[in-house]
Amino acid sequence: MHTKIIADAFTALCAKGEFIEAGRIHWSDDILSCEAMPGDMAELKGRAAVEAKGLWWHANHTVHSVKVEGPYVHGHQFLVRFTMDVTPRGGTRLTMDEMGLYSVLEGKIVEERFFYGGAA
Amino acid sequence: MHTKIIADAFTALCAKGEFIEAGRIHWSDDILSCEAMPGDMAELKGRAAVEAKGLWWHANHTVHSVKVEGPYVHGHQFLVRFTMDVTPRGGTRLTMDEMGLYSVLEGKIVEERFFYGGAA
Repeated sequence: MHTKIIADAFTALCAKGEFIEAGRIHWSDDILSCEAMPGDMAELKGRAAVEAKGLWWHANHTVHSVKVEGPYVHGHQFLVRFTMDVTPRGGTRLTMDEMGLYSVLEGKIVEERFFYGGAA
Repeated sequence: MHTKIIADAFTALCAKGEFIEAGRIHWSDDILSCEAMPGDMAELKGRAAVEAKGLWWHANHTVHSVKVEGPYVHGHQFLVRFTMDVTPRGGTRLTMDEMGLYSVLEGKIVEERFFYGGAA
């Protein structure tokens, strides 16, 4: 069950806070990253663009703590829940509650798609 | 944002334990239900078959409590997390930790796909 192996390894790195390393090892070079919001970063394609989004995000948020739950596996896809205590640059400290849905092809993550929770 | 409205209404019913009612109102008649395990119930198509699976499940599990988290929305899809304290018929009481990924088309849920967590 190849997806489960990738899912466990990826999630373990995230649980240690090693998000950049998790992507470096497990993303396909063609990774497609989809956010739930409109704008320039809604869909980014390719390792360089998605890594740049991550660097932008880390430069603009102070992460106080992250709770990682999962992975939840089905076929070639898996889910990870991230509950993050963060302060956006110049903003107010808040809790982000999000799910990442990851699609695996030939042992690499080819798509990540983020779902946001919170107050209705 | 139509998906968010469906997602909130569906999740609110689940949070009250009204799973059968949630499906009755929000499923498409063509609902496709996908479990993460092999077997006869791995993929079921159509309201009658999926309702029958639900009835089978409830007849074979005693549900002590359910915690519902979500919805988490992205485009035409949403996620709900279910943490259930259950005893399978003739089995041992356990906690099920699962995510449902729901796809909405024209105001109805056309697909549900379940992801299971738990020990790696």
